[in-house]
Amino acid sequence: MQASDRVEATHKGNKYTGILMPSIEKGLIILKLDNGYNIGLKGAKLKKLGTAKKIKSPTYKAKLKKSLPTVSLITTGGTITSRVDYQTGAVKSLTKPDELLAQIPELAKIANLNIITPFNVMSEDMTSKEWKILAQVVVKELNKKKVKGVIITHGTDTLHFTASALSFMIGLPNKPIALVGGQRSSDRGSFDGAQNLICAVHYCLSNIAAVAIVMHESTEDKTCLAIRGVKCRKMHTTRRDAFRPINELPLARIWPNGKIQVLMRKDWYVRRDDKHHMFSTKLDPRVVLIKFAPGMDSGIIDYYVKKGYKGMILEGTGLGHVAVQGENSWLKSIKAAVKKGVFIGMTSQCPYGRVDPNVYTNMRILQDAGVVYLEDMLPETAYIKLMWVLTKEKSKTALKRLMLINKATEMNPRIDEASYLY
Amino acid sequence: MQASDRVEATHKGNKYTGILMPSIEKGLIILKLDNGYNIGLKGAKLKKLGTAKKIKSPTYKAKLKKSLPTVSLITTGGTITSRVDYQTGAVKSLTKPDELLAQIPELAKIANLNIITPFNVMSEDMTSKEWKILAQVVVKELNKKKVKGVIITHGTDTLHFTASALSFMIGLPNKPIALVGGQRSSDRGSFDGAQNLICAVHYCLSNIAAVAIVMHESTEDKTCLAIRGVKCRKMHTTRRDAFRPINELPLARIWPNGKIQVLMRKDWYVRRDDKHHMFSTKLDPRVVLIKFAPGMDSGIIDYYVKKGYKGMILEGTGLGHVAVQGENSWLKSIKAAVKKGVFIGMTSQCPYGRVDPNVYTNMRILQDAGVVYLEDMLPETAYIKLMWVLTKEKSKTALKRLMLINKATEMNPRIDEASYLY
Repeated sequence: MQASDRVEATHKGNKYTGILMPSIEKGLIILKLDNGYNIGLKGAKLKKLGTAKKIKSPTYKAKLKKSLPTVSLITTGGTITSRVDYQTGAVKSLTKPDELLAQIPELAKIANLNIITPFNVMSEDMTSKEWKILAQVVVKELNKKKVKGVIITHGTDTLHFTASALSFMIGLPNKPIALVGGQRSSDRGSFDGAQNLICAVHYCLSNIAAVAIVMHESTEDKTCLAIRGVKCRKMHTTRRDAFRPINELPLARIWPNGKIQVLMRKDWYVRRDDKHHMFSTKLDPRVVLIKFAPGMDSGIIDYYVKKGYKGMILEGTGLGHVAVQGENSWLKSIKAAVKKGVFIGMTSQCPYGRVDPNVYTNMRILQDAGVVYLEDMLPETAYIKLMWVLTKEKSKTALKRLMLINKATEMNPRIDEASYLY
Repeated sequence: MQASDRVEATHKGNKYTGILMPSIEKGLIILKLDNGYNIGLKGAKLKKLGTAKKIKSPTYKAKLKKSLPTVSLITTGGTITSRVDYQTGAVKSLTKPDELLAQIPELAKIANLNIITPFNVMSEDMTSKEWKILAQVVVKELNKKKVKGVIITHGTDTLHFTASALSFMIGLPNKPIALVGGQRSSDRGSFDGAQNLICAVHYCLSNIAAVAIVMHESTEDKTCLAIRGVKCRKMHTTRRDAFRPINELPLARIWPNGKIQVLMRKDWYVRRDDKHHMFSTKLDPRVVLIKFAPGMDSGIIDYYVKKGYKGMILEGTGLGHVAVQGENSWLKSIKAAVKKGVFIGMTSQCPYGRVDPNVYTNMRILQDAGVVYLEDMLPETAYIKLMWVLTKEKSKTALKRLMLINKATEMNPRIDEASYLY
């Protein structure tokens, strides 16, 4: 028996049917069950039932329809353009992104899709290099008169980081930009990428000009939410409705039939216009995100200062704390970093809410030491924004000023109560 | 005019009335408004209205009632036992925790409270030292026959870390243990500590023996939730309903009148018994929690190995990723750390869900390199558990085995769908 055989496995009295995957450990049987999940069974007995059906790569023959609008689709890798390779067991990116579109014939009825693949990277391997290339490609498309909007397919894990990067590099855009991922690969019955893509095309034809993540609203195939990229988090490892808005309502609810319900106050997003787009793709990668935990040593600050880092975003506890009293105090290291010109911004490890240095003495001490409290900005968004801000300003005062100016509506003066655990 | 004066401030045509707080910046007026919030007004005009009322420290004269059960109350600091000091503007811990009880006369009608104050620390300044002292005090109380349960008041920011520490050091307890905090200090109208404490006393009189965080269920003063400490997170910086269960339902809903509704499956918690309690307060603090961000350099791993750390909990993206491909790969550093005997555990930065190395090639590579995937364990819980496990086992295999054994029901074989964004 070999990988890609269809087998029945007997394990502790239970029977499982699926496709045998290459094992990663001696004696461990890995089956890809029919529902798409993998199961690991130690010492299971196997019976061969057949061989996995060879998956034919469908091909996409787009016929341009003059009556339809044009949307640019940039594919960058990730689950949405992946399939399981039963021979190796790995989830692999499709060689031709067209194959994905062949699976979703509805798309060709809504828009002419102009496909571009600048690179193919799993989302955890992205760096500022890829963000820069992506911003350049996006702006090129935005500035084409006939292009109504731009869709980017991307791995879900760092989708919100990339969305933030585009938000700062591109600024408030002139047309809709949708980032789309899939929580299930396209070989699975529960593949969510199809509906997400369809809703993203509708979003691109709307009047809303914002960088948004367009993903399932619930676990059912009913609606998608468009959530502003600077205020969005992946809240679950596997659920199709993993992406949720943080500290604000979603921009809009989108039905696969094209209906769009705007959920956010109208003055909180820009409407489409014809301006030619300005942008700045400079990013300084010498920025680090540090999550604090009680008992954690402040040596990490000294380490990054020594390595020449220019900025740090702290993910403190609650309203924005790190240890300040006692043996374990971070104060000395923070003061030394600030003295060397390193910008230190404070965010919270509570997913929702706002940091506020004015409540407790310990935070006032941190603020006096030069730590800048970043309102309700998400740590991920602040991490990216600081990379961008460091290429624009140098002095302590100017860095602080720009970090606290709303460049991509990344801060909300008021948080809508209804957005908590939305 | 001076701090603690009651003033009217005129700023951009608006008038604000409140108590003048010490300023932290030249020209900045800070007012404590009557609703308890602070407001900062640059260049406001002030008119003195009077002086803040001196707050009398109420005193608590507990009369022991023989008919009432006994509950031990351990105070450790934090907002719940704090008041604003108008002279300094700081929120200060009460010198006598009894003062708090004097404000909540209902408590004396439910139980005789036995008050202990082993130390007084803001929660961000806690370390494993305080956790050890606390565990010893808690177990001493648990083993007193007449004590029905133990309440710990604590700053909210790291309440879930301390709850985890107690869960591992004490193991499955013989009686209820409730951790309680306040999101508002006791001088504010919206003080939540009173209801939280009342519900915690009821929890301590219940039949449920588990380490639980007992806090407001909603922003209204209606009910509290008891949430198992190993599966709980502070999800909001300021809301009174900030504590939410992660990957499971709450243990119970508690009404201030003493009604308790159990929400969790009965086989998922232990019932009260009379066993004398065993415990181990050994913790190895040479553990670090590292949150990954795309573009982040793996030098951080080498740094901690060099410093002699014995364990690392990674907070990876999605199902448990760090960069594995390309220039930025963490693989070399991880392999070197594992070779030196450092335990590396993987959790997710998605607040909900489970890590799973069997889906993507990049994660299989990490697993092959020795990274242990920690199911649905929370990063904060895993950080504490590893400190505890490192004092019990030394070999790679034994460490892995113990990390993946449910010692305090910190992992769920199945995640209740209804627990998402509960």
